Amino acid sequence: MNALLVSTKPATMQVWREELLALDPGLDIRLFPDTGPVEDIAAAVTWNHPPEDLHRYPNLKLLISMGAGVDHLFRPPGPPPGVAVVRLVDRLLTTAMSEYVMLAVLRHHRQDEGYRALQAARVWDELPAPDTEATRIGILGLGNLGADAARKLAALGFRVAGWSRTPKELPGIETVSGQDALLPFLARTDILVCLLPLTPETEGLVNARTLAALPRGAYVINPARGGHVVEEDLLAALDQGHVSGATLDVFRTEPLPQDHRFWAHPKVILTPHAASITIPRSVAPQVVDNLARLREGRPLANVVDVSVGY
Amino acid sequence: MNALLVSTKPATMQVWREELLALDPGLDIRLFPDTGPVEDIAAAVTWNHPPEDLHRYPNLKLLISMGAGVDHLFRPPGPPPGVAVVRLVDRLLTTAMSEYVMLAVLRHHRQDEGYRALQAARVWDELPAPDTEATRIGILGLGNLGADAARKLAALGFRVAGWSRTPKELPGIETVSGQDALLPFLARTDILVCLLPLTPETEGLVNARTLAALPRGAYVINPARGGHVVEEDLLAALDQGHVSGATLDVFRTEPLPQDHRFWAHPKVILTPHAASITIPRSVAPQVVDNLARLREGRPLANVVDVSVGY
Repeated sequence: MNALLVSTKPATMQVWREELLALDPGLDIRLFPDTGPVEDIAAAVTWNHPPEDLHRYPNLKLLISMGAGVDHLFRPPGPPPGVAVVRLVDRLLTTAMSEYVMLAVLRHHRQDEGYRALQAARVWDELPAPDTEATRIGILGLGNLGADAARKLAALGFRVAGWSRTPKELPGIETVSGQDALLPFLARTDILVCLLPLTPETEGLVNARTLAALPRGAYVINPARGGHVVEEDLLAALDQGHVSGATLDVFRTEPLPQDHRFWAHPKVILTPHAASITIPRSVAPQVVDNLARLREGRPLANVVDVSVGY
Repeated sequence: MNALLVSTKPATMQVWREELLALDPGLDIRLFPDTGPVEDIAAAVTWNHPPEDLHRYPNLKLLISMGAGVDHLFRPPGPPPGVAVVRLVDRLLTTAMSEYVMLAVLRHHRQDEGYRALQAARVWDELPAPDTEATRIGILGLGNLGADAARKLAALGFRVAGWSRTPKELPGIETVSGQDALLPFLARTDILVCLLPLTPETEGLVNARTLAALPRGAYVINPARGGHVVEEDLLAALDQGHVSGATLDVFRTEPLPQDHRFWAHPKVILTPHAASITIPRSVAPQVVDNLARLREGRPLANVVDVSVGY
């Protein structure tokens, strides 16, 4: 009645077991699918686990996402009623995500593609210098990840604004919130960065209508979830030249299908959902801590609001 | 006896004249080579001007470099004796240089080349995640540019240290100074960033001996001056695999000769001395201010120590 179910890729599960046992040798850990009696399982730490399977454990009280995102737990039928859901908040996850965003921003801003083409052609020629203080970055989502990226980009001198569902305040960042503020926010955005949680409300938020609201030549960066982007709409905006380019880490279907147009699109830079990878050693302490809180009846940390899905 | 000589590329000279006159319409500006009587010239703002020419103006009192670097003024025969030398210190110059450095660091750190190759081959495959907190960046030179890059890289979570000729203190940065500290500093450096002034003491500082002191696989970034690097030594270290790659903005001969090995070297990313370009509108106020200080006998700003050349 006190076992912890671990479920992700097999090789990664072994690492999780080692890191968790190193912190608390008394843990009763079961690696999926070797669960033992379903009654034993009291908590589960999972990534992309079949959502219906989580309804098989009658004593399950706590679901821990193996990442910052929890949308994988809200796929139908969603988490079992009455089960608490928590996510990871990790300095290294945040660091890695902000690195990814800054690399994508600077590569575009500093005309990296243009200079690489000049080098290949052995041409010594300056491109027009970009104006950092006039470059407007717009960040969709101001949770831990969005706020960190916003702060670091503002420190470089960019004009950074952020949009979120509910009002947020960040020193030095212009923040707006709510559906009515979305299109005006997009209209002042040269580089759009999506760091939203994926929920029914944000699914498909980057679409023909919102892309059209961006100024012509805007750049799009999405390391959040593939479900945020209507991929055909982004391809159309790229082909029309309304959007000048995109850096994408996540896709509707992952792995990205071999025949998907993104692979060879001259305006797309893509990575295989690698912007920010959970390192078990870094996050094991917060998992062990939440298990102790559960045992002792103390309030859990990093709790997800099940009613809104993040 | 009160004219200002301006000398750089012809198109840029016109911009300088406009920006300076916009701030002080009374300025008597002469664009090289239309100097008028040599006795008229009291001050000069120049970039890569023939150094011997500056000895022709008997009333010259102030030399203003059109950039952060002043090494172009110290080419033989050097600045005329008794003439004050000042350089530009500009937020936009510093911003642009730190952007260049961060782009080069992140491109290497986040395996940009590797992921671009995977995209080209349509391979969905994660590369090993880099460990930011274990990655040691070493910055040569802790003037305005080095200090700004150090601060911004440390804010991203890298382990940053800096080396300078004379002792400097920077919050959160490990600083060392002097020749004896150089090799130990290099031995703890995974990514070397050169932001030194070019002086007789720093000429050729990145050479076979110092490159050998870096750990195997270290990466080299040089947006300072071509004279800092012994290019044959860097090529040898790249070819042997001791240095894993280099991002270079400056070269011994500029433009870089068409047959130079850097152009097509698979481990070299290069740009045409474009890391940080002076924007006349941004720096004209400090030029006008220093001219006023000269007229009124007040102390000049951003004065160069002529005895050490920076």
